[in-house]
Amino acid sequence: MKRIGVLTSGGDAPGMNAAIRAVVLTAAAAELEVIGFEYGFNGVLEQQYFSLTPHHVNHLIQHGGTLLKSARCQAMFSDDGVRQIAAVLHELAIDALVLIGGDGTFRGAMALSQYYQGKLIGVPGTIDNDVDGTDFTIGFHTALDTALDAIDKIRDTADAFERIFLVEVMGRHTGYLAVAAGIAAGAEQIICPELAAELDTDKILQHIRSAQQYRGRCSYIIVVAETMYPGGASALAAELERQGVDCRASVLGHIQRGGRPVGADRILATKLAAYAVEQLLQGAHLVMAGEVNGEAVLYPLAKTGDKQKQVDPYLLAWQQRVAQY
Amino acid sequence: MKRIGVLTSGGDAPGMNAAIRAVVLTAAAAELEVIGFEYGFNGVLEQQYFSLTPHHVNHLIQHGGTLLKSARCQAMFSDDGVRQIAAVLHELAIDALVLIGGDGTFRGAMALSQYYQGKLIGVPGTIDNDVDGTDFTIGFHTALDTALDAIDKIRDTADAFERIFLVEVMGRHTGYLAVAAGIAAGAEQIICPELAAELDTDKILQHIRSAQQYRGRCSYIIVVAETMYPGGASALAAELERQGVDCRASVLGHIQRGGRPVGADRILATKLAAYAVEQLLQGAHLVMAGEVNGEAVLYPLAKTGDKQKQVDPYLLAWQQRVAQY
Amino acid sequence: MKRIGVLTSGGDAPGMNAAIRAVVLTAAAAELEVIGFEYGFNGVLEQQYFSLTPHHVNHLIQHGGTLLKSARCQAMFSDDGVRQIAAVLHELAIDALVLIGGDGTFRGAMALSQYYQGKLIGVPGTIDNDVDGTDFTIGFHTALDTALDAIDKIRDTADAFERIFLVEVMGRHTGYLAVAAGIAAGAEQIICPELAAELDTDKILQHIRSAQQYRGRCSYIIVVAETMYPGGASALAAELERQGVDCRASVLGHIQRGGRPVGADRILATKLAAYAVEQLLQGAHLVMAGEVNGEAVLYPLAKTGDKQKQVDPYLLAWQQRVAQY
Amino acid sequence: MKRIGVLTSGGDAPGMNAAIRAVVLTAAAAELEVIGFEYGFNGVLEQQYFSLTPHHVNHLIQHGGTLLKSARCQAMFSDDGVRQIAAVLHELAIDALVLIGGDGTFRGAMALSQYYQGKLIGVPGTIDNDVDGTDFTIGFHTALDTALDAIDKIRDTADAFERIFLVEVMGRHTGYLAVAAGIAAGAEQIICPELAAELDTDKILQHIRSAQQYRGRCSYIIVVAETMYPGGASALAAELERQGVDCRASVLGHIQRGGRPVGADRILATKLAAYAVEQLLQGAHLVMAGEVNGEAVLYPLAKTGDKQKQVDPYLLAWQQRVAQY
Repeated sequence: MKRIGVLTSGGDAPGMNAAIRAVVLTAAAAELEVIGFEYGFNGVLEQQYFSLTPHHVNHLIQHGGTLLKSARCQAMFSDDGVRQIAAVLHELAIDALVLIGGDGTFRGAMALSQYYQGKLIGVPGTIDNDVDGTDFTIGFHTALDTALDAIDKIRDTADAFERIFLVEVMGRHTGYLAVAAGIAAGAEQIICPELAAELDTDKILQHIRSAQQYRGRCSYIIVVAETMYPGGASALAAELERQGVDCRASVLGHIQRGGRPVGADRILATKLAAYAVEQLLQGAHLVMAGEVNGEAVLYPLAKTGDKQKQVDPYLLAWQQRVAQY
Repeated sequence: MKRIGVLTSGGDAPGMNAAIRAVVLTAAAAELEVIGFEYGFNGVLEQQYFSLTPHHVNHLIQHGGTLLKSARCQAMFSDDGVRQIAAVLHELAIDALVLIGGDGTFRGAMALSQYYQGKLIGVPGTIDNDVDGTDFTIGFHTALDTALDAIDKIRDTADAFERIFLVEVMGRHTGYLAVAAGIAAGAEQIICPELAAELDTDKILQHIRSAQQYRGRCSYIIVVAETMYPGGASALAAELERQGVDCRASVLGHIQRGGRPVGADRILATKLAAYAVEQLLQGAHLVMAGEVNGEAVLYPLAKTGDKQKQVDPYLLAWQQRVAQY
Repeated sequence: MKRIGVLTSGGDAPGMNAAIRAVVLTAAAAELEVIGFEYGFNGVLEQQYFSLTPHHVNHLIQHGGTLLKSARCQAMFSDDGVRQIAAVLHELAIDALVLIGGDGTFRGAMALSQYYQGKLIGVPGTIDNDVDGTDFTIGFHTALDTALDAIDKIRDTADAFERIFLVEVMGRHTGYLAVAAGIAAGAEQIICPELAAELDTDKILQHIRSAQQYRGRCSYIIVVAETMYPGGASALAAELERQGVDCRASVLGHIQRGGRPVGADRILATKLAAYAVEQLLQGAHLVMAGEVNGEAVLYPLAKTGDKQKQVDPYLLAWQQRVAQY
Repeated sequence: MKRIGVLTSGGDAPGMNAAIRAVVLTAAAAELEVIGFEYGFNGVLEQQYFSLTPHHVNHLIQHGGTLLKSARCQAMFSDDGVRQIAAVLHELAIDALVLIGGDGTFRGAMALSQYYQGKLIGVPGTIDNDVDGTDFTIGFHTALDTALDAIDKIRDTADAFERIFLVEVMGRHTGYLAVAAGIAAGAEQIICPELAAELDTDKILQHIRSAQQYRGRCSYIIVVAETMYPGGASALAAELERQGVDCRASVLGHIQRGGRPVGADRILATKLAAYAVEQLLQGAHLVMAGEVNGEAVLYPLAKTGDKQKQVDPYLLAWQQRVAQY
């Protein structure tokens, strides 16, 4: 193995740059050349790339976003496109490709493996934490702290007016962020797919009333996962208003994807990207580098989207039990 | 003068607690008793109050929100209500009342002065900075840094995808926050009432195209003041999408009102609240304590809502001139 | 079980308040009364305590420090003192005591168990992470991010002047913080007991020179664990200066103990404190509630100070290998 | 005027990058070429420079440190050196030079003006705020918030143990940072040259005792300007310990120079650097662009080091009066 490629794809996540840096430094120590493709798979297709050296990744570990840019790539959805991408990789003599992204990116890697002769390895970078084979994904802890900062600020204003707030957090189809942010913010209610497939406005209102009965006038924060209500937290707030409850909505949105990565994400990104390059050299292929129980492990790319991983059931149950107090 | 009251009213702002603390400490040094009314004027009407001592305000300077809570007060809109509030103040032997809030709060003070025999003094606390008689209001600098943090994070993700983002900031009917946040974030475009009474989507699109021509693919951030488009930034983004421009909207919302106050707000709050209490002892009445050119000054409460103060024209003009580069 | 006590002892850690809150809420759901002792064991001895209800812990989860204060307690070092403390607990009908602190606190609990008839359970709160039986201690992640913020700032100034900086972080006799902060900051060198029992200035100088040779002029940051050199980083910088290397020292000190806890610490504190109360009700005694591999577990208090837990050897080895690039 | 140079010199300050960006953008709008010299005056002497275009300063406004590096320059202290530097500027056809730095940098400019035929203009960048001709220098507000963050964290731990802390902040020979940070942190005591030329340990101890008498057990924070005691806060703490007072010292050090600039610094940097370039085009020479009372103004470089500007006397007096409560 002489030359590897690296790209970031799908939604960006804080720590992707730390992962790129670790790929480059680990490769330098192993005397591998690194080619960075820009805009995800598009950069392969359109041959937008540059040689990545340790100099390029100097102090990159601090920065949010991704040096290599990201993008969805239409070509990956057609057999022709995938063939072309494989052809470019062969042409550029790329022996292996490191893919930093989520399960969509990894599905792309599976497709690519039909035509590409080199090795493929994944590194899980997404704020949603919805990738099997790793306890946490790169970006999750930063997104959690960004959401928490925002909810703490909303708590100040909610407290000043003893108001009810709905705060919508990201997470695609899972409640990792909603539950973590809700527990950490001391939210009075968490609404996420893991607790109830269908949102029940009656139950929401009942809980508000029972808390107000127990505590008297108080602020009350509901953390809502993004896909739980058509139109999101704003539409849900409008519905609750219609049912006679004065409340405000706040949609955290894209601020959750950016920002300086926190320590936990920089360390995880460094460990998984370093491990990925080392394992490539040992022959790894079609696997993802994840961390399970504190250890770096390999996990089949084909299974990363199976949604077997679970939101902490202990904390969920506890929150349900105590939130009214 | 033996006993003064203090209340916070209208939208909460970071630094209101620092102002309450300075009222209490200054009063302690002058051997004045302080009564804190909760929920703005409602706390007077409903006699929800407590005696505030230096012990209560220990380390309060750090905290967002307001220890005294805030609320709009319906009673202030009727002659009867105002009379009742004056009566309670007389009954409780309140010699003077310190009002921390914005121009709405100060209009309330003007109304109250018809019936209340004591002194009334204002301290400008609002993130909007839309109060005449002071260069800055308490809370503005914290809200600016909160908005900036958010926009910096959005820049990361906008950069990764070379995307266009509309970010809506608060400010009621003025562009102080929009202009300050836009300049400080290096936004490509700022949309606020000071630049154009009416929003012109053609001009917005033209500017985007000219920047893209000059720079090539790039991220592009538009900071929009909250009242510039019906339905806000989300509706404007939808309109731009209809006109063929791929963009995202982010509404910063209530996070801008909360949070630990920054140094500038703690210092301003301390200075203005201390000055207000000292000036009350000198006989000040129906004035606001403001800071102009670094000096604490008094300004007639009746003129605080005149909107004579202006957004920095130098920076506005500069931004217009360079933003395409 | 009707009435439990709770105290915080030893060095304070961000998240201790979150743990107190979870003790109180979990107890409320189980209809247990909670007594909070102030100043660690001193508050038992001197009977400084108060009844803790959900109202007291409202929004406490956000705050650094500890509502119950902390202190070392001389009395715990004498048999007489320990007897007295047990006597007060019996007198107050405390059925069980929850101790939030580090291994010193847990040694205290072992001593107390000779005379106290109630149950004793520990919750690991210390920024040092040097407690066996839990992957992380409460406070570690916040201290890591505080150190990281500081080192990132130092990197800015180090870069501007292409200067060498020594940054001293806490950790008592272990390198958890030094290694985590060093990896996350992209430090060029980490000096901690896990890498070398004795510090070797020649090796330090050699590494600096080899990096400068590889990279040319550049900033260079050395993270040093606090006990690695007599007089700390300042003395070590003076020694390196004597050997002809221009460098600066920065001792992060007590800022590492304070501050709003990050999400990871709030969640861990909530989980472990809730679990501790639940396990007390199941009869747990002389154990600590820890988290291992994502699961709440019990671990013998007697073994929490055995120092069997290890700093991540994978990351340590990797850092050694790549740091010169 | 066709080609201008820009350099940063002296201690780095957050916002220097924002100033560089504004120089480049303003020059682009005026069709001026910009040459960036690295390492202050050294980069002129050693001809280390590059052409700066808007592309280079893309998103630079967010970052601490300085893209152009900084350094002290020995050559500036000899007549020969200054001559050589002027010669290089002539050779490179630099029509004017923008100097971002403090009064040392501006003294350098005065020296250079003896031999250099082009225009010289200063932009005040230093965290110390000790430059006449501008209400605030670029970097001061960020350094204030960095110091405040640290002191707030120290307050948490000081509170938990009801301990006395000495916190040393930067400021060279002035107390701007000490006073601002002390007021904003609610420090119990501020020690700075403006309050007393000589530090009096008896007075310090007396104040501590009087506060403890008034308040009972409590935390107590003393903010000390860096040059007030030989050996700094650590030595002063040792002295107080000798006199029987248990206390801790924390030296904030270089973290105060780095970090993302806050909004106030980004806006000031943008305004002053833009104004400097515009005024160069109008013929300005040997002046500094400052902001006084909200307006951009020019001030003779020769007078920037006169130390006529003063720390806010109102706040100083107030703090003295109330700090014991």
